[in-house]
Amino acid sequence: MTETGKDGKVRVAVDAMGGDFAPVSLVLGAIDAAKERGENLGVILVGKEKEINELLFSEKCSLPNLTVVNANEVISMNDAPAEVYKSKPDSSLNVALDLQKNGKADALISAGNTGAVLLHSTLKLGRLKGVGRPTIGALMPSKQGFTLIFDVGATVDCRANHLKEYGVMGSIYASYILNIKNPRVGLLSVGEEKSKGNEVTLEAYKLLESSKLNFIGNVEGNDILNSNVDVAVCDGFTGNIIIKFAESVNDLLKTKMRRYADKGLLRKIWIGIFAGTMKNILGDFDYQWHGGVPLLGVNGVSIIGHGKSTPLAVKNMIKRAEEIVRKEVNKKIEAELAG
Amino acid sequence: MTETGKDGKVRVAVDAMGGDFAPVSLVLGAIDAAKERGENLGVILVGKEKEINELLFSEKCSLPNLTVVNANEVISMNDAPAEVYKSKPDSSLNVALDLQKNGKADALISAGNTGAVLLHSTLKLGRLKGVGRPTIGALMPSKQGFTLIFDVGATVDCRANHLKEYGVMGSIYASYILNIKNPRVGLLSVGEEKSKGNEVTLEAYKLLESSKLNFIGNVEGNDILNSNVDVAVCDGFTGNIIIKFAESVNDLLKTKMRRYADKGLLRKIWIGIFAGTMKNILGDFDYQWHGGVPLLGVNGVSIIGHGKSTPLAVKNMIKRAEEIVRKEVNKKIEAELAG
Repeated sequence: MTETGKDGKVRVAVDAMGGDFAPVSLVLGAIDAAKERGENLGVILVGKEKEINELLFSEKCSLPNLTVVNANEVISMNDAPAEVYKSKPDSSLNVALDLQKNGKADALISAGNTGAVLLHSTLKLGRLKGVGRPTIGALMPSKQGFTLIFDVGATVDCRANHLKEYGVMGSIYASYILNIKNPRVGLLSVGEEKSKGNEVTLEAYKLLESSKLNFIGNVEGNDILNSNVDVAVCDGFTGNIIIKFAESVNDLLKTKMRRYADKGLLRKIWIGIFAGTMKNILGDFDYQWHGGVPLLGVNGVSIIGHGKSTPLAVKNMIKRAEEIVRKEVNKKIEAELAG
Repeated sequence: MTETGKDGKVRVAVDAMGGDFAPVSLVLGAIDAAKERGENLGVILVGKEKEINELLFSEKCSLPNLTVVNANEVISMNDAPAEVYKSKPDSSLNVALDLQKNGKADALISAGNTGAVLLHSTLKLGRLKGVGRPTIGALMPSKQGFTLIFDVGATVDCRANHLKEYGVMGSIYASYILNIKNPRVGLLSVGEEKSKGNEVTLEAYKLLESSKLNFIGNVEGNDILNSNVDVAVCDGFTGNIIIKFAESVNDLLKTKMRRYADKGLLRKIWIGIFAGTMKNILGDFDYQWHGGVPLLGVNGVSIIGHGKSTPLAVKNMIKRAEEIVRKEVNKKIEAELAG
């Protein structure tokens, strides 16, 4: 992988067929990113050429830094990753990753099937030196901003050294990409004391403690939203359950509001008036991949977006990918893990 | 353990010194329970006799079914369970459990140190036949009522058969105590498909599938609040992190409301007016041990309440304990586990 193209331009391949609003959302987001970043950025839309070109035509778009590469197959949100890796070699995801593998792109963004992006990226790009397991992170809104959680589903059975790697990768990401100074890394567990935890976390505690990270020890479930930690480290089983639980909080609150409103006309009017205010307050508690989250630990750059990514979210993902390439996050991870 | 006293009276020992509001909250709750249940119930307050008697005197309380047993030591919320089990043999918790062990009480309720209640109960009462690991459950408010989660911290490293036991015990509790007909038991995991999960849950799936339970397969983090399951089974590590995460949701919302209000006077007034409505809507999302939760699997009855249990919560815990004894929950668990 080259960290940037020869001319200082970063080339981002966009999996144009992945996601609930594909290809429209991806194409529109790609146009906006290409316009905004100009010659610093090359955007490569990968997918069904005819469909993509029709969209570009209808948008009257012809930009020198926006190109299209054809791929005839599409991976759906429900496809089994391991199956389609074999059965759909000409998928937009696979072709987009081939570009990166062959030095024709520096990064990938996809709003498609998360499991497929994970598997394809890992198999196609390989792992960074020192990384046992790549990891997917999530940004959880919290009192003072956001808390990063690693891992949220890439690896359900983790060993202690995997958790330590997540701490290293998460810390570097938080520091260089989210601009958090000296990020606090915490090990998610069942009590603050060093003696609290399961077999794996007890061992991971020792590894994290003796690392160069700003390790603040064990953190508990409530520390995530309370902003007591910047990077919360856990196995992908626990992390996945937490982010899905968090996603459902908004839904529960809405149901409770509706039920409250149903108890009388006055209440209904009252709740109706208040809906806008509630949206402001609760808005960002919706679980979202703000600008996408990186799959860290692969020997390349791979950003995973929410299936429902809007053009704005897609544009932010592309810019995020560019930033990760420019800031040489992978080199920093390898150096830290070697160190 | 006798399931009821000789005369049909159930005798509940109250750890009067455990909890943030001890002994006041415990004594007041005990008085209310003794009054309400009359001769059906014997309530035994265990703790510093002098303090308890002073409280009873100030309440002008003299009930034939409310007695006091002295214990000179107190276990604090921060005491290490294993340490105080040895160093404080005359603690209110230990003496209260001795009453049960010696056939002088049928149940214990405590709002004290959860870890200590777990350890003391397990060591003092022993386990039911067929139970590898006792479990602590939590009642989580959900769209349609409540979802039970087992385990929330008794055992952080679970084997597959422990998870199956939790399913059996949780199902019996949901059915006989919460009156849920044919409770849906789900295995908390990272995907609905049988093939999704970590090593332990994949194995537990098979055990649960071949049990007589109403096993609905894997459930995900969002299914808890969405009422898609009645009894969610997981290891104590995952369960503990979830309930603590859930506890912190209210706090985050309050902070966000305050911040919204701080943006202007009109908003401040608006939020002020709405505070009462919000309380109604969000109120029961506060994590609470509604009427306490049972420590299931011990050869006796042990109910654990929130440290901040009010007299009303204490009264409900005592009545819940009586109900568990009368409905012979433990006999049902042993029968079910014996197959």
